Amino acid sequence: MKEDILYHFALGTPTHNFPALFGDVKFVCVGGSPSRMKTFITYIAEELGINNGGNDFPNICAGTDRYAMYKAGPVLSVSHGMGIPSIAIMLHELIKLLYYSKCSNVTIFRIGTSGGIGLAPGSVVVTKQSVDATFKPQFEQVILGKTVYRKTDLNNDLAEELMECAKELNQFNTVIGNTMCTLDFYEGQARLDGAICSYTEEEKMQYLKAAYDAGVRNIEMESSVFAAMCNLSGLKGAVVCVTLLNRLEGDQINTPHHVLNEYQKRPQKLVGHLIKKCLGRK
Amino acid sequence: MKEDILYHFALGTPTHNFPALFGDVKFVCVGGSPSRMKTFITYIAEELGINNGGNDFPNICAGTDRYAMYKAGPVLSVSHGMGIPSIAIMLHELIKLLYYSKCSNVTIFRIGTSGGIGLAPGSVVVTKQSVDATFKPQFEQVILGKTVYRKTDLNNDLAEELMECAKELNQFNTVIGNTMCTLDFYEGQARLDGAICSYTEEEKMQYLKAAYDAGVRNIEMESSVFAAMCNLSGLKGAVVCVTLLNRLEGDQINTPHHVLNEYQKRPQKLVGHLIKKCLGRK
Repeated sequence: MKEDILYHFALGTPTHNFPALFGDVKFVCVGGSPSRMKTFITYIAEELGINNGGNDFPNICAGTDRYAMYKAGPVLSVSHGMGIPSIAIMLHELIKLLYYSKCSNVTIFRIGTSGGIGLAPGSVVVTKQSVDATFKPQFEQVILGKTVYRKTDLNNDLAEELMECAKELNQFNTVIGNTMCTLDFYEGQARLDGAICSYTEEEKMQYLKAAYDAGVRNIEMESSVFAAMCNLSGLKGAVVCVTLLNRLEGDQINTPHHVLNEYQKRPQKLVGHLIKKCLGRK
Repeated sequence: MKEDILYHFALGTPTHNFPALFGDVKFVCVGGSPSRMKTFITYIAEELGINNGGNDFPNICAGTDRYAMYKAGPVLSVSHGMGIPSIAIMLHELIKLLYYSKCSNVTIFRIGTSGGIGLAPGSVVVTKQSVDATFKPQFEQVILGKTVYRKTDLNNDLAEELMECAKELNQFNTVIGNTMCTLDFYEGQARLDGAICSYTEEEKMQYLKAAYDAGVRNIEMESSVFAAMCNLSGLKGAVVCVTLLNRLEGDQINTPHHVLNEYQKRPQKLVGHLIKKCLGRK
């Protein structure tokens, strides 16, 4: 294409010099909440000793409120909203951005929150495979009205490196496990507290225990398309989510705000540690 | 439930008096972008002669950046992000909010943007049925790993009332038609300009023309679950989306910003007109 508008980023090749703006990017961290991704860029910049002349890092996508994007040296931090469709739009435009910027050897992390299964709240799960609601490691994509299935394995070496980092940090429980990715937070995750619910507590528990037996350790809403698009585009990717609650014990997230805040920093710390190590190695 | 935390709104029955805060709500308008929903509340407040003592209307969900919510008299304006999962979370929590607030006879509108098929850009489509990527009027919901199908008809009388309002306003082209709701913006909507594309321009055109022949006049990403949840909860609902481009003529949204801005106000004007009429009638 001669010109390309990345509409949801409010960036485009006619108006932005992508290689100059993003050519040095080596790590991309994505997460649902714009404010959390801003917190992350401040954190990683401090860890890497990068400062922006004493100023805040500006939102590169300030022309839109669909996504927020921040950059500190080789690290890009982008929000993706909630759910597969929202992160998919972002990933399409991000992959094009990296391509136009002539970036190479980029590693991408999703740092997020999730519901745990059989884990103490605050545990961090590094995803081995993302599985669907029937526990199959696949992502269903509808193209021209026809369904195709895509692989949802994540990079094994990167997951092992993250587990090594978790050992070095030794600050919170971290496990490797399968992550179930759903299209819905309430009925899709067997919650009893949605506006609509057509099953019993017993059926819910049966389903969640079956998920546990299939190797599922947490549930979230973006990992499957993230894994599928990493595989298709050749990006090395990892999904690192903290569990805010143990779904075998309840549905509501009623943990105090300051505790949740500390939990949400754990994936940032883990990924931050890995990025520091990688950059130090050079 | 004794206590209920609406986590993604950062509101809860232990901390907020729902009937006092929301008991008078009669109209809810939802849309993807938080800033557009803020613009809408300012617009409708002006139209209804409601002022907030000269101050801005505050974001009721300021405790989170997942959604934004504003209120002016009987009108609530809520953002829902992009895609079915994102709007579904919001609708679950909104329906619970209206229930706890003891609201009755509430009408809900989705005012959004879309890609048109065979319509001049800037046309407004009032949805008759929301259809899936195979043009069937159904929403697929996965519950405990099993797929159930839900009806996606929208309220016919409300759609007719909106068409009547469009005639009265007489400012832009407005049609009733089917709206295709997809899980993806690029491959899911037969775009050729995504990071991944496995079909030809000819196959794309064939698909979009088949959609047109099936009565589809626009494509967006939230209407199916919106319609399904309206039907299940008894809310009277309408989907009113402006088309930003004609997909038979291209994929990119490269219309100047000020033109897009004017387009985006059209659903607001149409729904605003209806709300004014309804309130005037009493």
